[in-house]
Formats: sequence, structure tokens, C-alpha cells
Amino acid sequence: MRASIATGPRAFSSDVLPIVSTRFDRWALRRIQLSVEAARLRFVLWDGFELRPKSGPPVATITFKNRRALLSWVWDPDLNLGEAYMFGAVEIHGDLTAMLEEVYRTLTSTVRPWWRWQHANNVRAARENVHHHYDLGNDFYRLWLDRELIYTCAYFPTDACTLEDAQMAKMDRVCRKLRLTPGERVVEAGCGWGTLALFMAARYGVTVRAFNISGEQIRYARAQAKHAGLADRVEFVEDDYRNVQGEHDVFVSVGMLEHVGTSDYPALSHVMHRSLGDHGRGLLHFIGRNRPTPLNPWIRRRIFPGAYPPTLREVFQGVLEPHEFSVLDVENLRLHYARTLQHWRQRFEDASDQVIEMFDEPFVRAWRLYLAGSQVAFSTGCMQLFQVVFARGSTNRIPRTRSA
Amino acid sequence: MRASIATGPRAFSSDVLPIVSTRFDRWALRRIQLSVEAARLRFVLWDGFELRPKSGPPVATITFKNRRALLSWVWDPDLNLGEAYMFGAVEIHGDLTAMLEEVYRTLTSTVRPWWRWQHANNVRAARENVHHHYDLGNDFYRLWLDRELIYTCAYFPTDACTLEDAQMAKMDRVCRKLRLTPGERVVEAGCGWGTLALFMAARYGVTVRAFNISGEQIRYARAQAKHAGLADRVEFVEDDYRNVQGEHDVFVSVGMLEHVGTSDYPALSHVMHRSLGDHGRGLLHFIGRNRPTPLNPWIRRRIFPGAYPPTLREVFQGVLEPHEFSVLDVENLRLHYARTLQHWRQRFEDASDQVIEMFDEPFVRAWRLYLAGSQVAFSTGCMQLFQVVFARGSTNRIPRTRSA
Repeated sequence: MRASIATGPRAFSSDVLPIVSTRFDRWALRRIQLSVEAARLRFVLWDGFELRPKSGPPVATITFKNRRALLSWVWDPDLNLGEAYMFGAVEIHGDLTAMLEEVYRTLTSTVRPWWRWQHANNVRAARENVHHHYDLGNDFYRLWLDRELIYTCAYFPTDACTLEDAQMAKMDRVCRKLRLTPGERVVEAGCGWGTLALFMAARYGVTVRAFNISGEQIRYARAQAKHAGLADRVEFVEDDYRNVQGEHDVFVSVGMLEHVGTSDYPALSHVMHRSLGDHGRGLLHFIGRNRPTPLNPWIRRRIFPGAYPPTLREVFQGVLEPHEFSVLDVENLRLHYARTLQHWRQRFEDASDQVIEMFDEPFVRAWRLYLAGSQVAFSTGCMQLFQVVFARGSTNRIPRTRSA
Repeated sequence: MRASIATGPRAFSSDVLPIVSTRFDRWALRRIQLSVEAARLRFVLWDGFELRPKSGPPVATITFKNRRALLSWVWDPDLNLGEAYMFGAVEIHGDLTAMLEEVYRTLTSTVRPWWRWQHANNVRAARENVHHHYDLGNDFYRLWLDRELIYTCAYFPTDACTLEDAQMAKMDRVCRKLRLTPGERVVEAGCGWGTLALFMAARYGVTVRAFNISGEQIRYARAQAKHAGLADRVEFVEDDYRNVQGEHDVFVSVGMLEHVGTSDYPALSHVMHRSLGDHGRGLLHFIGRNRPTPLNPWIRRRIFPGAYPPTLREVFQGVLEPHEFSVLDVENLRLHYARTLQHWRQRFEDASDQVIEMFDEPFVRAWRLYLAGSQVAFSTGCMQLFQVVFARGSTNRIPRTRSA
């Protein structure tokens, strides 16, 4: 079940390294610098030729180790920053997060063309996409997630809160937003290792049917349910969310919508409509955007195939409006996700020797870049984390106030 | 400045009343009953012919006093229920709210064609629309609004809260959601009688520039500012929101967006962009919908020309996305508006003799129907009340938690 991502073509080998950079190489480097002109970065070629930031000291140095890395970056920086870094053809000296922040802050003001297709995720494609990421092995995720294996944004009531406590606080916040009461029937779409489903059943007395297409996660979740004595109240189903059946009081999905393409939103909407009773309500927790933007192509290739973080508008249009669900509450937790990722990245770095043993060096470099890049995407406002509470449009069994 | 709405053609006079209803009249009445088949209503013609609800006792009786009222309702019930009622050609016996609830609950499941045009509200049209409604005279509104003349949804922290306290609580909630701090510069678009502007300055120490195109409201607001000793910190500007100039920390608009047509959302977005600094934030409070739906044509004709309650999606697409504003928080307060309207309607009924003296009988009937209809629209979920907090996409000066 171990998948290595280093098996792709080693496009960045240094065999043809020229000793001295040419005028063309230096022109290419200037083009790169110009594309992120305001960024306080130092760019260096393999022979030591360097370009310094227009003003002030650099926060980091980016070194191109060969011409292919240089040219690939000129050609398609969105894709090839990641490719070149992961295969070691680009080195970054200084703080990776600080370097990425410089780049993100420059790029937010740049309009990029949407020239890459987003393919619809049919049931089979969805299964392959999920397998790519979530079936890397529980042992891998155990190295750097919290002890309950929660792989979504935590909630930090205070700055001093630990990651473990913040994940508990997040789950409790979700349950309180949903006003769960004992005996209610909850359906969860995309349940990860099952922690939220078990939490809801144990702390709020509900019964849960939780869906996931990752076989490894479902097996783990079932064992946890048995261990906690909750197997009679929490059913883990290894199936696609589109196959949810039966009537429920509550629909909850934490961290799945990013993996549902917009073209499948009407299907999701229909599933919610079909599986909720007259007074049904629900919560969607997902990574989003302020305006429609394609996901970085390198992240799509190496980390999350098929993923797309939507805007609230896209979700409301495709998922909530078709069946007249009513939006009750929205909260943006992007700074909580930046902090969550900071915790994960610290733990990941602490365990990087073990990750290299499990996989290889390019895998570690790819995940380092992904975790740091995600942290910066949330801290700079390129990505959002939305929690949306909704209910049937016609029910008045909705909270009067946030506290009541 | 007194405008009467009874000056239109008296289309519903009873001069041609036939003594006995014909088979055609009774067929028409059956059509009306069928269009709201599930509603527990009793329909009666001028000669006593009646249709009772399919099951159970009726909650109200609707009596058509002549054929014109009957046929106009068959032809265009959305428009002519209001017209016939206001001119006395239809009488409703029993509780008006209960009757409207029956109709609304039936109609929510009916799809209606969008066959009426929404005209763009240019500056002149906006002025005329506002004049139509808001310049009816402060004396009129004083009869049934709270003592501070706040003509937007209140916030009831508890069921026992008075209207006066609930309006204070609403203003305080808006200020706390915006995290106003002393010395900040606030611009308010559509300030009514100026109560929120004065509240923000007095309680939160900010300076405010408040815009309104209703001359009568602006004059009142300026007098209040002087009286409260706040004239140096609150400037009331009699102008269109599109003419807002200068840089501010906060943009707030409570109850104006419903009067801005969707075609003018890009203009509003640009005004917000232009008038907010790098760390700008704001709040939009508006009547909305779960899916795009035209406003009832009678309300548009008699009460709110040019009004359109949008969906969150329409607001995000037209107002927030173009300049990459980030949604931080959304709250749906529709049940608070139902309660607010209940208070208003009670006060309105208590003062109806005075309103008849000021205007005339059709005016009182029109406003009675408008207030009851609005209350029911919110209590049945046909209309929503959204508060949206947003900020520049790139600023991190945003609240970490709702309490902090």
C-alpha cells in the first residue's frame, strides 16, 4: 500500500550542467525575478551568479542547480517550482515559509488564466484520487497528525491551545453549531479515520452512518468503533457519498467538498435533499477561495489529484440553492488552518528521517513544500476555510441565537 | 410631503355587482382554491356561495365582493391579492397572518416564472424609489417604529426582549461584529434616520460619514446629531452611496442592499473597494432569499419600488468577489425579523385611526397587508435576513474567534 511519488521521470538530473551560466541563463533568471518583483528573494544560478531583491535584505535564497530547473520555472512556475524543488534541482536556503509568503503575497495581485481543465470526478476517479492521498498508510499520518488522526483544520480557542485540544475544540464546535441532541440520526460524508463520527456518538448521543471510499481509513475507523464500544451506534460504510441512502436529521461533511468537483455539486445537493427529513440541517466544512481560482497544478499532480477549493458562491449555487437549503451561519477559520498546518509541519520535520525511510527524499521534499505552501496560502489569505451551517428552507427548528 | 397611495384607478368599485354568482364565477373560484389547494381557507363570493378547505376547519375566510376582484386574482394573484384587498374588494375574516401563512406555505413549493423585469436603479430612479417609501413623513413612522426610528430587523437576545431593547441589541451586535475601535473612520451607506451612525460614534468612539438620499431622514438625523453633541464626529450626507469618497476603515450598510438592483452590485463593489483601506472591513445587513426570486409585484408597486432581495450567492458574486473581499461571518436572522414585524404591526394596528387621518383607508389596508405579509414571509422561510461580515482578502487584522 506504500506509494512513492518519486517514480516519475527524473527530469531534473544534473548531467548536462554547464560550468558557467550564459547570457541566456541570466536573462531567464531576470524574468523569474521580474515575475515576483516585490518579493524579497535572492536568486542564484549554479555558477554563483546572483540577483538580489530591489530593496532590503532577502528573506531566503533560491538556487537553481541546473538549466532545466531554470527554464522549466520560466515556462510554468506554478507547476515547476514544486517539481524542481521536490527533485532537488532547486534549493531554498532560509525559512521556507517566509520564502513562500513572499511569493504568495506577490502573486495574489496577479491574475492567472484558467487554462487547465478540471475533470469531473466520477465514482471511479474519486476512488483513485482518494487512494493517491489517503491510502499512503496510517503509519505515515500517525507520525505528524494529532493522536486522533484528524486531517482537517483545527479550532484554537486560545493561542496557547495544543493541536490535540484544538482538534477536540473543532469537533465540539461542529456539534454545537449543529445543535445535536441525543437519538438524532447523523450521516457523515467523507469521515476520514472516523474520529468525528465517534465523537458525535460518544459526546452527543447520536447515531452516525459515516461514508468514506478509503478502505484503509474505514478499517481503522471500524476497529476504533469496536474498541470504544460504539459499534452499535456508529456504522462505517466503505462507499461513495453518492450512495448515501435513508432519512437523517443531520448531514455533516468535514473536508470532503474540496474533493468534489463543481460539476458534481448538483449530485451532492440531491444526496443531501434525499437523505434529510423535513427539518433536516447540516454543516459543510471545506477549503475555499474568495474568487474562483484553479488549485495549484503541482498540488493537483503530486498531492491532491482532482481537488478544487470552491468559493462560497459556487457552493451555494451548486449545492444549497437547487433544493432551497437556507444558509444559517458561515464562519471563516483560515487563520486556524494556518496554525494547524504550522503544527503539522513542525511534527513532520521532526519525523522526516522516518518519512525518508518509509518513502524517499523527493517524497519528503514534496510534502514539506505542500505543508509549508498550504500554511502560507491560509496565512496570506489565498485560501479560506469555511464552515457553513444550513437547514431546510421551510423549517423553523433553527437556532434563534448563536448562544441559545 | 404626504403621499397617498389611494390615488390610483379605483379598479375595484362595486358598481357592476351581479346579484347572483354565475357558473363561470364559481369555476373561477375553484381555480383559485386549486392554486392553493393545501391551504385551510374558506373562499366566499358576493352572493354567499362558498368553497371550504378539503380538510379541517378554515383558519380564515376570503370574501370576493365583486367579479372584477375575482377575475383579477385568477389573472395575477401575486399582484391582485394586494390590489383587491387594499381597495376593499376582498375582505379577510379571521387572522390575517394565519391566512397569509397558509398561502405562503402552499406557494413555497410552487415555481413561479420570472416574467417581470427588474429595472436598474440609476441615481435618479433610486431617489424616486426612496422618496416613495421613506419620505412618507417622520410622523407616520413615529407611530409604529421604536422610539429611535430604526426601520430594520432587530435582534432579540431573549423572547422577552422589548422592541426598543432589541434594536439596541442589534446595533451593538453590528458594532461588535465589526470590532469597532475608537478613532476609526466608518462610512455608512443608507443610514435611515441616523440612529446606528450616532450609536457607533457615541458608544464605540468612531467617526462616521453616513449617506442617505432621503432628504427628510437626513434633516432629522442632523438634528439628532446636534442634539446629542455628536455633530463633529458624525457627518450626514444627503447623497447617493455611489458618491462616497475618501478612505475609511469600515464600510457598513444596514437595510440598503435590498434597494440596490443586482445590475448595480459592481458599482457598489467598486465603491467599497475605493473607500476602504488595506485593512478595511465591513458589514452588509439585508433581506435575502434562498434562491433567486422576484419580489412580489404588489409590494414592488405599492410599497417598495425598485426593491430586490438577493441570495447570498448574488451578493458574493456581484459585490464581494470582484475585489476579492473575504467573507468572515454570515448570520441568518429571519426569525428576528418575523418578531420585529410582529411588534411593528401591533403598533401599527394600535395607531390605525391616526394613520387613516394622515392618509386614507386603502393606505392603511395596504400597509396592514405589507406588514403582515412580510412577517409571514420571514416566519415561513420565504425571506431571509442576512448579516455578512467581510474584510480585504489580504489583511490578517481579522478576528481569530467570535468571542476574541
